[in-house]
Amino acid sequence: MGNEGFSRQRLLQTVEESRGFPSIDPEVLAARLAEMAAVGWTEEGGITRYVYTEDEQKAKNLFRSWMEEAGLSIREDGVGNIYGLWESARAGAPIILTGSHLDTVKNGGAFDGALGCVSSLMAVEALKKEGAELDCSVEIAVFVDEEGARFGSGLLGSRAAVGDISKDAFFQMRDDEGITAAEAMKLMDYSPNKLENNIYPRERLRAYLELHVEQGKQLEQQEASIGVVEGIAGPSWLEVHFFGETDHAGNTPMNIRKDAAAAAAEFILYLEQLPAMHSDTAVATVGRLSLEPNGSNVIAGEARLTADIRDLDEGVRDQMITQARSEAERIAKRRGITVSHEVAFRVKPVPVPEWIRRSIEDASQNIGLATESLVSGASHDAMMFGAYVPFGLLFVPSFEGKSHTPEEFTELKDCVNGVAVLKETIRKIGTGK
Amino acid sequence: MGNEGFSRQRLLQTVEESRGFPSIDPEVLAARLAEMAAVGWTEEGGITRYVYTEDEQKAKNLFRSWMEEAGLSIREDGVGNIYGLWESARAGAPIILTGSHLDTVKNGGAFDGALGCVSSLMAVEALKKEGAELDCSVEIAVFVDEEGARFGSGLLGSRAAVGDISKDAFFQMRDDEGITAAEAMKLMDYSPNKLENNIYPRERLRAYLELHVEQGKQLEQQEASIGVVEGIAGPSWLEVHFFGETDHAGNTPMNIRKDAAAAAAEFILYLEQLPAMHSDTAVATVGRLSLEPNGSNVIAGEARLTADIRDLDEGVRDQMITQARSEAERIAKRRGITVSHEVAFRVKPVPVPEWIRRSIEDASQNIGLATESLVSGASHDAMMFGAYVPFGLLFVPSFEGKSHTPEEFTELKDCVNGVAVLKETIRKIGTGK
Repeated sequence: MGNEGFSRQRLLQTVEESRGFPSIDPEVLAARLAEMAAVGWTEEGGITRYVYTEDEQKAKNLFRSWMEEAGLSIREDGVGNIYGLWESARAGAPIILTGSHLDTVKNGGAFDGALGCVSSLMAVEALKKEGAELDCSVEIAVFVDEEGARFGSGLLGSRAAVGDISKDAFFQMRDDEGITAAEAMKLMDYSPNKLENNIYPRERLRAYLELHVEQGKQLEQQEASIGVVEGIAGPSWLEVHFFGETDHAGNTPMNIRKDAAAAAAEFILYLEQLPAMHSDTAVATVGRLSLEPNGSNVIAGEARLTADIRDLDEGVRDQMITQARSEAERIAKRRGITVSHEVAFRVKPVPVPEWIRRSIEDASQNIGLATESLVSGASHDAMMFGAYVPFGLLFVPSFEGKSHTPEEFTELKDCVNGVAVLKETIRKIGTGK
Repeated sequence: MGNEGFSRQRLLQTVEESRGFPSIDPEVLAARLAEMAAVGWTEEGGITRYVYTEDEQKAKNLFRSWMEEAGLSIREDGVGNIYGLWESARAGAPIILTGSHLDTVKNGGAFDGALGCVSSLMAVEALKKEGAELDCSVEIAVFVDEEGARFGSGLLGSRAAVGDISKDAFFQMRDDEGITAAEAMKLMDYSPNKLENNIYPRERLRAYLELHVEQGKQLEQQEASIGVVEGIAGPSWLEVHFFGETDHAGNTPMNIRKDAAAAAAEFILYLEQLPAMHSDTAVATVGRLSLEPNGSNVIAGEARLTADIRDLDEGVRDQMITQARSEAERIAKRRGITVSHEVAFRVKPVPVPEWIRRSIEDASQNIGLATESLVSGASHDAMMFGAYVPFGLLFVPSFEGKSHTPEEFTELKDCVNGVAVLKETIRKIGTGK
């Protein structure tokens, strides 16, 4: 199979191998993924759905219509998270919450987030179809702004749902056009006020479950169908801002320059070497950088970058942050310029409880699917709930490990396998077996 | 005097020391610079006037109105250069052309270009007022797009005036919004067609003269009033484009990454070290860089940068370009990524004829001003004419060497001294003395 990006046709190449579960229709799954992918589709064959935009709203409305057709009770909270409840006959029954997000990075893929939402819905539809009798309710969640692509933060919706975000944050975060999150959400009739009303009643939760594409190559390499996540490496974003001096590139001798771009370059190379000093699982990246004034014949007066630093071990991760901050200061001092650095985002690494991992493994084994244990280097909405309630995260393979690009792809049979395992995991947890 | 940026008030701080030349009114000079600076004024206290925009058009119209008041015959060519002729009574007399540009970099200063235009006009006005009898005409030129800030090239107007630009170039150059120069100029009623009609009749030129701010610190350090430029270091722009692979920053182990940002960082640091291997006058800069997709949690799939490389010695300059290209390839190879590199712009270094330098020195000495010989690391419209006709370039001091920033400043007395020397140089050359 070539690396030609997303299409419904490409999905349907494995439709025959995807018919193993009578209650899960692979063609419906393919059709829904394709219909969702069409919202925010870009010329490059990717998808851009930033939070609080028309396209993101369209995606949510589309998903909402599917939940309505499935007979779920829909509600939306004040920041834009939507929920669809399959309510237990038992009053006050506990809830299994399962979901993901529908926003994307710039020119991202058709599976990251969307597959988690669609899988949750199809697992619930299948359980209903099978007449499953659970002793709890199941609720589907779509969280806004998991990616943080617009405002530079992330997990906005799930942070709001667990009460881990302040009103101020919405007024401080700005997109590239200077619009605050608060302004953007108001335009969509949401509000940064009364945030306490958006907190999910987590005392009622038995578990939070999320299915996601791996965004890595381990499942593909191990030929496993299901990744059982041991824990999420805690991501952190360190914002570094070098302030040099804007000067004419032709008339300023090399030895008197205060070049912010060169300082940023030194920092990027330091950061690239940093994880190897610590562990195999640690990673560090500068993927976002801007120079000011960014002219060919002007020495950069400012360089602003974000260092993304992660590890499953919180101590290691925090040590890397500290080292990166010190190095930024050393670079600035040596160059006679100034630097500011601030941790914009720091999440604890979160382990998945063993009993949930075992539930996912058993569910997979029962239907004959090979599993692989792995660490998630990517953060997910599951992580926010994981800090408070039992949670599970299962991965399906990503073609060549590609994600956050138009090349992101997961075969239909792998998607269907994921739905089946999610369904069986919900049944296990929902019947206490 | 503080570093507070441009204002008319700040200019007028030296008005009393600027009254040494009865035919040059310092208050008119200050008023014109201030009126011009108001066009395209930014919140940051700088000026942005990109070519083929409303603000640039306003600036040209303002200058045009001053030339009309001075009784000059105005014409505009097909790319937007404007000329104002003070015609000799002698039919077919040779011409001294003197001028500069009115476009700016993003958030640039009030003197770069504008002072050259205003000085040329005030020198001509002063000569007229003094009843000077020259044996040639004097023509003032305002060239479009000297800076290249919008389309990534530069010297557009003066290249057109000497016939050193092709029609294709206007269709290939694009601004950040993807608009070609050809489209942009059409919106302003200019045209990339019939370029031969824009070529200045240089067989009639006796000399081209330009006054400019130094954009460096040598005059300030030597306490000289006038910089007599020996030659212009040939600028060149090398476009380098690294193509790596876009991957998730959390789920891609360090050892399998193809990170275009890290490759760019290596290149920037190499380029910073390169001039020192060659000469004291050589400089190399990366001031413009963009990453794609430029997301905090995405490994950069592309990094595009411009390397600005200059020296007065063409051989040294070209050797640096060759070395930079080789290094870009070595970096890409070592990282298993690809790179493209292209010289977008390369201008021969141009020496100023000795007799013109002597004219400027004599003119300065006659009015008691100290001069300093220096090399221009910045390119100027003068350079394009210098390849074909005798040319001269004189500098006035730049406060702290700052240029291309809101902090760019030249004291009024230095501006007036510049006008006086330009006037006397025109008189010398225009009377063959």
